[in-house]
Amino acid sequence: MTKYIYLKTLFLLFSSVYFVTAQPVVWTSVQPGVWKAAVGKPEAYNLLTASGTRPNASALVKLGQTPFPLPQTGITARVVDGKTYLRFPLNRTEQLYGFGLNFQTVHQRGRILNLHVDHFRGSDNGRTHSPTPFYISSNGYGVFINSARYLTVYAGTAVRKDSSDPPVSQDRNTDKSWDSSPYSDAVEILVPAAGVELYVFGGPKPLDVVRRYNLFNGGGCLPPRWGLGFQQRVKTLYTSDQVEAEAEQFEQKGFPLDVIGLEPGWQSKSYPCTFEWDKTRYPDPKGFLQTMLSKGIRANLWLNPYVAPSASIFKAIQPFTASHTVWTGQIPDFTQPQAQQIFFGQLAKDGVNLGVSGYKIDEVDGYDSWLWPDVATFPSGHAAEQMRQTYGLLLQRYSTDMYRKQNKRTFGLIRASNGGGSSFPYVIYNDYYKHEDFITALINSSFAGVLWTPEVRSSDTSEEWLRRIQTVVFSPLAMINAWDSGTKPWSFDDVSKAVQDMALLRMQMMPYWYSEFAKYHFEGTPPFRAMNLEEGFTSEVKSEVVVTSLEKNPYAEAVRKEIKDQYMAGEYLLVAPLFKGQKSRTVTLPTGNWYDFYTGELVGNGQQITASPGLDRIPVYVKDGGIIPMMPPRLHTPKAAEVVPIEVRYYGSKPGTYRLYDDDGETFAYEKGQYSFREIRITKQPNGQINGTISAPESGKPNSVGAVTFRQMTK
Amino acid sequence: MTKYIYLKTLFLLFSSVYFVTAQPVVWTSVQPGVWKAAVGKPEAYNLLTASGTRPNASALVKLGQTPFPLPQTGITARVVDGKTYLRFPLNRTEQLYGFGLNFQTVHQRGRILNLHVDHFRGSDNGRTHSPTPFYISSNGYGVFINSARYLTVYAGTAVRKDSSDPPVSQDRNTDKSWDSSPYSDAVEILVPAAGVELYVFGGPKPLDVVRRYNLFNGGGCLPPRWGLGFQQRVKTLYTSDQVEAEAEQFEQKGFPLDVIGLEPGWQSKSYPCTFEWDKTRYPDPKGFLQTMLSKGIRANLWLNPYVAPSASIFKAIQPFTASHTVWTGQIPDFTQPQAQQIFFGQLAKDGVNLGVSGYKIDEVDGYDSWLWPDVATFPSGHAAEQMRQTYGLLLQRYSTDMYRKQNKRTFGLIRASNGGGSSFPYVIYNDYYKHEDFITALINSSFAGVLWTPEVRSSDTSEEWLRRIQTVVFSPLAMINAWDSGTKPWSFDDVSKAVQDMALLRMQMMPYWYSEFAKYHFEGTPPFRAMNLEEGFTSEVKSEVVVTSLEKNPYAEAVRKEIKDQYMAGEYLLVAPLFKGQKSRTVTLPTGNWYDFYTGELVGNGQQITASPGLDRIPVYVKDGGIIPMMPPRLHTPKAAEVVPIEVRYYGSKPGTYRLYDDDGETFAYEKGQYSFREIRITKQPNGQINGTISAPESGKPNSVGAVTFRQMTK
Repeated sequence: MTKYIYLKTLFLLFSSVYFVTAQPVVWTSVQPGVWKAAVGKPEAYNLLTASGTRPNASALVKLGQTPFPLPQTGITARVVDGKTYLRFPLNRTEQLYGFGLNFQTVHQRGRILNLHVDHFRGSDNGRTHSPTPFYISSNGYGVFINSARYLTVYAGTAVRKDSSDPPVSQDRNTDKSWDSSPYSDAVEILVPAAGVELYVFGGPKPLDVVRRYNLFNGGGCLPPRWGLGFQQRVKTLYTSDQVEAEAEQFEQKGFPLDVIGLEPGWQSKSYPCTFEWDKTRYPDPKGFLQTMLSKGIRANLWLNPYVAPSASIFKAIQPFTASHTVWTGQIPDFTQPQAQQIFFGQLAKDGVNLGVSGYKIDEVDGYDSWLWPDVATFPSGHAAEQMRQTYGLLLQRYSTDMYRKQNKRTFGLIRASNGGGSSFPYVIYNDYYKHEDFITALINSSFAGVLWTPEVRSSDTSEEWLRRIQTVVFSPLAMINAWDSGTKPWSFDDVSKAVQDMALLRMQMMPYWYSEFAKYHFEGTPPFRAMNLEEGFTSEVKSEVVVTSLEKNPYAEAVRKEIKDQYMAGEYLLVAPLFKGQKSRTVTLPTGNWYDFYTGELVGNGQQITASPGLDRIPVYVKDGGIIPMMPPRLHTPKAAEVVPIEVRYYGSKPGTYRLYDDDGETFAYEKGQYSFREIRITKQPNGQINGTISAPESGKPNSVGAVTFRQMTK
Repeated sequence: MTKYIYLKTLFLLFSSVYFVTAQPVVWTSVQPGVWKAAVGKPEAYNLLTASGTRPNASALVKLGQTPFPLPQTGITARVVDGKTYLRFPLNRTEQLYGFGLNFQTVHQRGRILNLHVDHFRGSDNGRTHSPTPFYISSNGYGVFINSARYLTVYAGTAVRKDSSDPPVSQDRNTDKSWDSSPYSDAVEILVPAAGVELYVFGGPKPLDVVRRYNLFNGGGCLPPRWGLGFQQRVKTLYTSDQVEAEAEQFEQKGFPLDVIGLEPGWQSKSYPCTFEWDKTRYPDPKGFLQTMLSKGIRANLWLNPYVAPSASIFKAIQPFTASHTVWTGQIPDFTQPQAQQIFFGQLAKDGVNLGVSGYKIDEVDGYDSWLWPDVATFPSGHAAEQMRQTYGLLLQRYSTDMYRKQNKRTFGLIRASNGGGSSFPYVIYNDYYKHEDFITALINSSFAGVLWTPEVRSSDTSEEWLRRIQTVVFSPLAMINAWDSGTKPWSFDDVSKAVQDMALLRMQMMPYWYSEFAKYHFEGTPPFRAMNLEEGFTSEVKSEVVVTSLEKNPYAEAVRKEIKDQYMAGEYLLVAPLFKGQKSRTVTLPTGNWYDFYTGELVGNGQQITASPGLDRIPVYVKDGGIIPMMPPRLHTPKAAEVVPIEVRYYGSKPGTYRLYDDDGETFAYEKGQYSFREIRITKQPNGQINGTISAPESGKPNSVGAVTFRQMTK
């Protein structure tokens, strides 16, 4: 025994002081096309335990089996001194996507990132609202690091002495082609823990990888139908009367409205919060909420989760909060059942039970100063770092559970998420506001397993206001979040009509949006996604080195010109926003014919075109054979049992199909099979006319589809 | 035995899962006014072992004993899961300085920093060229964390539930004074290691704290006299003939020059480097260097330490290099004696032995992409993180040793340093170039135990060129680093004369600069330092919250208006630079009378004044009783045995004293007592005339002081 201990001590000493040879990683198939490996001693608390989601096994079976998608021998791991070092191979041509909700870059190869939940601060460095440790290779595989730690990622930047494919040494004195970023043949990742769980997802296409990742996390979220309508947020100190008056204005002016968001002032105190209604501003919360609901308008409540000393739950929750405070509010440890019960009990009592439709959960991302420090401790014993990486997940998880208990869907706003969060009905937002970067975030949300809203806040000009409205209409959440300035959709008079048209277009497209979200849920396909996930899309990335002065740019770094300002919206649409000051822009079309969304005209095929549609329109293009089911313009989303007529728009000339989704739109009955996909088929006849059909509704399933008409957009 | 193991396992399990109560820290006096504590199991490799410096014990004795300078009970430490959590108390009024070479902030209280060797990237977040884990309190004490890890610092931001002086909870709904940064009563620090060494330095004044810190690290560096002259760096592919021609131009045009810097092209290959002369450009390195030396000009050679495959030392050093490469160059593990011998053996052979005066050591700071990744391993077994935090220290240490062996002082340039590096004869530089921030860095260098040069590179206008020349003249290293553009001091014709005057002023002030550096070495007083270290300086920090829109600035963070654009240069001078576009500026004078450096006129006392000296002058002010010893203008620093006349300028009316330092200016003989401080005394007589004396030279000591004259500047 003593000898054994001696040897073991010696071994530990040895292993901590000297090298540990990197070991190959052993993979186990856990779902079709999904493999898992354990390196060292993985921590019990990780992203998947925090999110608590379970794979959609049947959907994964449907996607089918694939061979292990990358060279196993190139994957190695070392555990030294309580840290895990991972290496994954890269070949010369592959590109990488993902590593979380980046705002300025799509192609991640060549970047160094510290994956860390934080408010995005203006340049992509891994610190973002969802630093999902998941990357997708253009070669058709994905890697997920299931760790709730801050990970450092070298995405094809680190060059090893022992590389079998090393870069050639250059002499910068004389060689004009000297490269400041020599070729690297690996992704290397530092996990600050003595072990970690890894997952690999198969393809063959990058979109299949994303689908598998989302399905493995339970599938993408399916919002209630009303969640896809319009949301307006109102001034923080509004009273219930003022809120009702604002809703009335929308009605009178003919602007759609499904959700009104109440800011901090709904509470008796905020920052820190009481989670209780302020009775001077809201004397009868239940009556107010029911009045609103009767007009087809739901209320979403702002909160941050930090408990004020004056909150009624303060005393009860105190034992289950962290060592530190945020803005003097106590920080619930949401891994503790007691904290969950107390906190969400209060939310149910003053919120869900009264008819509140959802929450806007603020300040769970960071800015560092507006969060607990990494030195904080939590009753669960989880490190502050682990809690930071998962706090957004925990809030999404348990608030969703609260709604599930009432068999009501929710659709809310959150400032932080992470790997494992695909299925939560939340959309990420933040305080940053660069329109171009908002679109790049929308693109990257499809790699990060999250939803993102390019919300409209204050705008300097009517042009900017309209341009932002246009993109938010083609996004997961059509929200105006201009509560502080009190800007309303009609505030800019000269574009008021155009804003109204766009808002109504959003409502008309509801059958399309809702079906696309159903595919996110049941098949894992992100409703808004990167062009790089689209077949036939090739973008030449121009990497230009412009050396003006070594005094100003000593390393002559190449500026990468990747396409990061256009995206796919659902199965058939390509959206190419215009930004403030732009009269026209270049759009890169994948191969195949593409048609103007508004006119049905052919615009190009696998080429770059210039779009200059004027101020009132956002460039949107439809794939050949594209089918867009629409309903009449209206101010509120149809209610659960309401039947609406459908106009099916058809573009181009290829035979088209579309699976139109239907369910009750409000409950979780779809999880028990109470839904249907009806198949629409359209073919173009030799005479140039179209022939459209839709499969019969399934008996016993919800059916909200009334008369169906077919409209040939391309003449 | 078995039972013991069981209990121990249980304990380990317990301690890693549940809280570990913070323990008070036990302090041991290690020098007068310096205390040390060990928390947990400190790592063997730390900043002080890397730097290898030893305290100047006799100077510390001279500074005297102080009581332990902050409340011991408020200092606590915890070690959990391989991490150390430190807490130091703060009271309501104290301000904090330090935490490394920050570029944009002087007051550090309220900031969150990750101390990490890196290129400064444009905003202070702890990632900088010398992230010295040392802070100084306005209450007169300092704390040094002797760790070579990346430390996370919450400098009075973290608010604990159990605080005995917690902030009051506010309701943001209605309270206009709501503060986004509630009061915090502690500095909290996360050290990612299972233990750490701590040091506390006593005051009573903040300047005493700084002195003790520097003396504890061996005292500040004493450059050779020539190191304080002018340095020009020349185009990378220059030949020895071209370098000689450029030196000749300086001579002819009457611009001072002591050092010429050769950029990468002196080597046969660079990026990665061979450390060998390129024989086509430098056919006779020794002859070239001797020719230059005979003209009073020294050569400084650029290098980065990454070894090219074609270097003659490549094969020998390869076993002692890291797992990864930088620009395909191998990375020596400078903690390994073999790597030291091979590398510095080559530098001695092709450098020091031939007459090279020093090095400019590039790319040891980071940018992340231009360094090894944190997943790299080193033959010593030190973590990549530890090597990154100390690499600049190691290069300074062993290159200094190389010069010491030849009994020659050096004065070089480095891109990274850290705690423990005060004594190394290196000045930090970087690629960033905002003039204002360069001055803030100069201020903060005095808290970080390093030297910093606001070097002059390319300038857009002659005004900018002159303004930058003016500040570099009042800095540790008067260098023009415009090698790529080839800009010369006289390149901007319209300010050429003013540039020449400033450069000659630098030379005239040599007796002052050299004495001030001697005080840095022997007494620990930084020659260029923050106003906050000056008695009688009080700056009201205006913290203004301007809330325009919660959509644009949701947390209404206060903008702190601290004074960060003026500094002390030596014992008596206050320098207040003007920047491009400025015609005048505000200067905050400490209490006491202050006089214009150029005219001797009284300008104010403890007040804010407006300086508008025109383009040719940089505002400089002299303390009452100030004494500035000067020599005649000249183009090269006096040689070792050369005797020069001294003109002693005197300002104001208070009795003044000055200790004029002297030694051979080139060797380490001063370490063996071969130096003297001669005392100058000046009093103003009742008749308004001055009476000046200088103590006699010490016999057997070097004496370069010729005729001494006294000049009354204030009439």
